[in-house]
Formats: sequence, structure tokens, C-alpha cells
Amino acid sequence: MQFELTKEYIENLKELIELNKEDVIKQSLVDLHSADIADILEVLNTKEAMSVYLLLEGDTASDVLLEIPVDDRRRFLAQFPSDVIARQYIEFMDSDDAVDVISELPDDKKEEVIAYIDDEEQAEDITELLSYDEDSAGGIMAAELVAVNENWSVQICLKEIGRQAEDIDEIYYVYVVSDNEKLKGVLSLKKLIQYPTQTLISNIYNKEVISIETHGAREDVAQMMEKYDLVALPVVDNEGHLKGRITIDDVVDIIREEAEKDYQMMSGITGDVELSDSVLSITKVRLPWLLIGLVGGILGAFVISGNEGALERIPNMVFFIPLIGAMAGNVGVQSSSIVVQGLASGANDFQSLTGKLFKELGVALIVAFVLASLILIFNLMFNFAGSDGNLAYIVSFSLFIVVIFASLFGTFIPLFLNRLKVDPALATGPFITTMNDIFGLLVYMLIAQFLF
Amino acid sequence: MQFELTKEYIENLKELIELNKEDVIKQSLVDLHSADIADILEVLNTKEAMSVYLLLEGDTASDVLLEIPVDDRRRFLAQFPSDVIARQYIEFMDSDDAVDVISELPDDKKEEVIAYIDDEEQAEDITELLSYDEDSAGGIMAAELVAVNENWSVQICLKEIGRQAEDIDEIYYVYVVSDNEKLKGVLSLKKLIQYPTQTLISNIYNKEVISIETHGAREDVAQMMEKYDLVALPVVDNEGHLKGRITIDDVVDIIREEAEKDYQMMSGITGDVELSDSVLSITKVRLPWLLIGLVGGILGAFVISGNEGALERIPNMVFFIPLIGAMAGNVGVQSSSIVVQGLASGANDFQSLTGKLFKELGVALIVAFVLASLILIFNLMFNFAGSDGNLAYIVSFSLFIVVIFASLFGTFIPLFLNRLKVDPALATGPFITTMNDIFGLLVYMLIAQFLF
Repeated sequence: MQFELTKEYIENLKELIELNKEDVIKQSLVDLHSADIADILEVLNTKEAMSVYLLLEGDTASDVLLEIPVDDRRRFLAQFPSDVIARQYIEFMDSDDAVDVISELPDDKKEEVIAYIDDEEQAEDITELLSYDEDSAGGIMAAELVAVNENWSVQICLKEIGRQAEDIDEIYYVYVVSDNEKLKGVLSLKKLIQYPTQTLISNIYNKEVISIETHGAREDVAQMMEKYDLVALPVVDNEGHLKGRITIDDVVDIIREEAEKDYQMMSGITGDVELSDSVLSITKVRLPWLLIGLVGGILGAFVISGNEGALERIPNMVFFIPLIGAMAGNVGVQSSSIVVQGLASGANDFQSLTGKLFKELGVALIVAFVLASLILIFNLMFNFAGSDGNLAYIVSFSLFIVVIFASLFGTFIPLFLNRLKVDPALATGPFITTMNDIFGLLVYMLIAQFLF
Repeated sequence: MQFELTKEYIENLKELIELNKEDVIKQSLVDLHSADIADILEVLNTKEAMSVYLLLEGDTASDVLLEIPVDDRRRFLAQFPSDVIARQYIEFMDSDDAVDVISELPDDKKEEVIAYIDDEEQAEDITELLSYDEDSAGGIMAAELVAVNENWSVQICLKEIGRQAEDIDEIYYVYVVSDNEKLKGVLSLKKLIQYPTQTLISNIYNKEVISIETHGAREDVAQMMEKYDLVALPVVDNEGHLKGRITIDDVVDIIREEAEKDYQMMSGITGDVELSDSVLSITKVRLPWLLIGLVGGILGAFVISGNEGALERIPNMVFFIPLIGAMAGNVGVQSSSIVVQGLASGANDFQSLTGKLFKELGVALIVAFVLASLILIFNLMFNFAGSDGNLAYIVSFSLFIVVIFASLFGTFIPLFLNRLKVDPALATGPFITTMNDIFGLLVYMLIAQFLF
């Protein structure tokens, strides 16, 4: 039932391309979903992909264009003049998709393409949508929707829906508006089908409609649609006029992207990459954080060399340098990631900053006590510290302090970043981990130097 | 428009509860969405929450029950006898939600509750759904859907839909089946509205329907619905009979959960926690991986003490112990997380394992060369190594080897785990990072010991 992309399929297709069998290729693609065709294009080289792409009909071609990765799309579109882009591709798209594609074009080409759009209403919609911040509700909404007047009857509505729905893939909800286009409520198609045709819309629509303003943040869009289980969210301007709607497929993309961003931040990668990308592009997203790690390592070297006295007096201290550093890093990442997940889910907790830090202190005290005790028992039992009698106590005491500090630091930093409107996930990245490492080392050295 | 939960609201509500003002409380909740009521209950204590919950009407009460976290739901339901659970809550739920709630009950209560369900069809549906693996398509689907026969006319369909849709919140798609209930295609409500009433369904339905079998994995459900932008996915048995459908809100939950699982794995947390959870439950999910980190630190101590000869000969080696360990860990996590993200997105790449490792080797060679050169320049310029002339070369050479090893290891392990059907995200967790740390240390020590 579902198409499966196999190595054989691709080899066969490459042969057909080689032999220029356009009709056979066309025939083999006709039953495929645009997402599958996009997958096929992705494993072909650019020349092969282009020759297959040019065989697609307008509607399918524009759907496929929307499914391929941004970079490929840019490369594809660079090959076409503005009028072809407008008339063969943009014309078949919903306004939100059209806006995405147009905003990826070079600046001079943007206006040219818009000028070539023959459907004036579509051109206007696109120009308006382009004016919104792309991370706001206005920037991700589509202008296409089905709206009916509150004073109409079911019969007029059904007729009107049939007309308006021609341009729209999926209806989901019918929005009810007042005479001056203000959003009043929502109506399900189910209800329209169930009620007699002479029923007035005003008697059957649901007034409890959840909407967002055009300047709302895209994270809020995702949170609202997820929380209230919506498949479409209407967008209004600050006077309540209905401007567009956001559908669930966009939200799924937002959720996926936000999760990937946080994930990449924690793994020290600065952008989207896949295993199939080139060696250079993978290197480019990996080097920056590694360089920061390198600087951190050099700072660590300074911390140790600056406290050489302690090491000369207690040479076996060196054994536990990796342990102290690693534990500081691990504890800090745990603390930060719990905060980051909490902030991302938008959970309401009414705990003050001090309240949060006090709770974290509670957790940290238990964790620090358990870890410090275990390493003390180990050191005393196996006499690992050798002749440095105090080392066992230095290690445990340092670990205790370091765990508590890293916990509080790891909790505080993302909350602090969030207040500064900086992405709190930054706190889970290598920068803070590196700082925790170095600080842990410093604590260890200073305790050995001055307390024992 | 949207309800906002404030501290004042909660304080006011707590006072009303204290004063037993049931009518006022009821009135204040009547316009709220069940998700908002659930949020309110979550910040009250158990006794307060229960007294508010008991004021809710059947339909709202069962919606709210579905919105509160699993633990709270379990605690709530423990207070009710089986017949109340069946008749006041389960009765109002879709079969997939009912199954979720029932499977959370203690074993002896499960059958009791099912026996008390008055609607025989619902009881049958629930019993069937409970028989599927909860991580399979069958385990997450709902039995409620709207299906029409391919031989009917639009008019009969509309009537039939009105009847069937009574139990269903949202229709999304109408499924077309043959006389023996096999899934044939799909029909949008939009089309039903647009075509004349005497049109035959067989002439207008879409035969390219995407479906999944009951035993399909839930990750596949999410991937398919995301890829093909579906809001509902029909589920069939292995003979093609239509058994149920999965809606997009479940998929959003799956995507969120999978992302959180991967995120927690990387941050070294073994379960779901929020900042608002108790100190003990937060401690419980954090300690396990920290203990593994502790064992890793102890192994690190053994590696250093086992190679003390090198340290005695080149004492300044100690400066770079943190650097080597941290870089090994950072590089390894980067490599693993790229693989894990690739596997999670189900991207098709046809690269063999050897191909992937070769590409990673390319990246690793560049990264290792850059990092090793930079640290060499630093050491030579600042003469940080002091009198140990060779140390600069030992550090750079070790870093070079360690980066390459950690890259390959970090790429190989998740691919290997995936082949063993173990969650590849395990590779991004503290266990592998700790192993990379220790291995890095060992390489550093051995190179100093034997090569210089």
C-alpha cells in the first residue's frame, strides 16, 4: 500500500533517466505521493533530480517542491525565471507555503515573482503574510480558510462552503464571522450536516473559539494547539478580525524543530545536519562548540598549573581530576535540562526563583551526600589515596561542594537566560558544562591547597 | 479570550473551597476548557482537587480526567468504585482514551470496570483494543470512525454520517469500505458537500488511501502521519478490514514523548520529572546515571594510577588531563547524536555501515587536525609545557587519536544498538561519554608512556 524506496528502485530509475525514457518515468511516478517523490529526488544527483522533476505536472510539481529540503529547493528554483516560478509553482500553493518559498528566494527575485502572480487575491495575501515576523502566528498562518456569516442559514452556508473550499485542501473547521469580519465562533462540518437546512448559523455555532493574535509567538501556537487538541487555530488581528488559520501539520513541524534545536544545543551541534550531508557541512556545525571545549580545556590547564603546590604536596590528587570534572558536568546538565524541559512545556508552577533554587538545593544535598559518601567508602576501603591520608576526605568534600554548586548553577542559568529572552537551552550546551568542569577543578584544587 | 491561570485565581478558588461555595465554583468552571480545569487541579492539593473535581458534570469530568497526569489520575480513580468509573467516566470516552484509562487500573479492577460498562458495543471495542500491544498502531487507535459503503449515494452517506457521527468529536475523513468491511478509500466531507446528492460514492472517493496494519509500530504511525501530512490514519487488520483510526493529537503526543525520551537520555535522567515534582522523585531519576559517572571516575583513577610512571617522568602532563577527557566526551556525543537524529527521522540514505564510518572518518580527520594543531600552536607559543619539551607533541598527538576514535565509536555504537533493536539514544547518554573519557585518558597516558 505504502511506497517503499529501495536501492533497486533507484538503480532502475537511474537507468531510465540515462536512457531518456521520459514516458516510463512519468508513468512510474503518477501514483506516488509528493512526499515519496521528494524522497526519490533526494537520493538522485542534482542533474538526475532536475530531469525527473521537470516531468511532473504543475500541481504535483509544486507539492514536491514543498517537500524537498530548503537547500535543494533553493538550488532548484535558481534554475527557473521568475515568471515560471510564479505561474507554474506558486500558483498551486496555499498562501503560507507560497510565503515560505518566496522568502527563501534572493531579495531581487522576491518582488519579481510576486509581480508575476496572475491571481490578484493570492498576490495580496502573500504580500500581507510576508509583512509578519516569520516566527509569529501571522508568519506561519495561511490566508485560505472557510468563513461564514453568523446571520446565514445552514443552506446558504453549505453552498458558500462548496464555493470557498475549492482552493482549500482540508476544511477542518468553518469559522463564523460577524458582518464586519470579526471572529465570532466556530462550526464543525458535522453539525452543518446534522441540522436542517433552514437552521440559522447563529443558533448552532460554538462561541467558545480559541484564537491567537497575529503577533503571537510560534511556540505559543504549538502549545495552544497541543493543549486544546486543535487541528486548526484561527488567527485574528488586534481588533479581532479573522486573518488566517494555522493547521496542525505546521505545528507538528514546529514541535519537531524545537525539540531538534534543544537536542542539538545539548549535543554541541550548531545547525541541522544529517549523516548524508557532505563532510564539510558536518564539520562546519561541529567545530564551533569543540573550539569552545578546547578553550575550556586550556583554562583547565591554567587552573591546575596555578595550583601546582597542592599537587606537589598531594601527588595522588591527580587520580581524581577526571572524576571531579565529569561529575560537575553531569550534574549541571541534569539540572539545566529539567529546567529547559519545564520551560518548553509551559508548565504552570507558581514557584518563585528562590523556591526553585531551594528545591534544587534539597535534591543536590541528597545527591551530593550519596556520591561523596560512596567515593569516601571506596577510598577508605581500597586505600586508593595511598600515603596521602587526607586525600580521601579532600575528594569527598570537593565532590560534595562541586555537586551542590553545579546543581544550583545548572538550575539558575537557564531560568536567568529565559528572563533575558535568550534560549534557555543554551545552558545545556557545552559552554556551561565546560564552565562546570573548570569550576569543579578549581574547587578541588583550592580545597586541597587551603583546607588540608 | 484564552483562560490564564494566575496566582490570584488559585488563591480565590482555595478560599471558595474553604468556604464550601460549591455553586460559585461550579459557575466559575462552566466556561473553561477541560485542559484548563486540569491545570487548575494540578496546582491544588489532593483534597482540594478532589472536591472541585466532584462538582464537574459527567462529560466534562471525563474530559478533565483525560487531561490530568497519569499519577494524579490513578490516585483519583482509586477513590471510586468500579461501577462509578464505568458509568460516570468511561461511558463518555472514545474507545482509545477509555483503553488508556482502564489499562492504568490495578488488574482486578480492570475487568470489573469493563463488566460495568452498559454500552455493549463500547465494552466490546475496549476489550478488543486492550488485546493489542500498547506500542502498536492497534494499541493507540480508536474504534470510533465514520465509514460508508462504496455502493452508496452521497445522500445515503450524508444521512449515515449524521447518525454515526453522534459519538465522534471530529470526523476529519470518511472512510469508504466494501461490503465485507475492507478499506477501499477515503472521502473528504468537502467532496460530499460539493457533489449532487445522487452521485455514487464509488465515483468520487479517493482510492489512494494510506493505512497501517494493527501491529505497526507507533513510531511508524508518527512518521507516516508527519510525512504525508495526515490528520487521521486508518488502521486495518492483516486482511485489510478497517479496524480503527489514529488521530493527529495522539501523534503529537508520540512525537513529544519520543523527543523527550531522547533528550532525557542525553541529559542522564531516567524518567519524566518536572521542577514541581518532589525532591525525592527528582533525586530518584538523577542518581542512577550519576552513579555510573562515579564508577567511570573511579576507573579513570585506576587508569592514571596504573600509568604513574609517565606522570612522574612528565609531571606537567596533568595540566591536559581535563582537556583530553572533555574533548573525547564532546566529540563522541556529537557523533552519536547525529546518528540518533537520523535514525529517528527515518531518513533514507542507502549508505552502508562502512560508508557511514568512512564519512565520519573524513569529518574526524579534519576536526582532529584543526584541534590538534591549535593546541600545538598554543603550547609552543606559550611554552606551557614548561621543561617537558615533548609534552606539546604528546598532547596534540593524543588529542588527534582520541578525536578520531571517539568519532568512530560515537557513530558506530548507536548504529550497532539500533541493529540490536536497542534504543540508539542510549549511545548519547552518560555511559558512552564516560567510556570515551576514560579511553581518552588511557590513550594519553599510553602515548606518553611508550612513544615519548
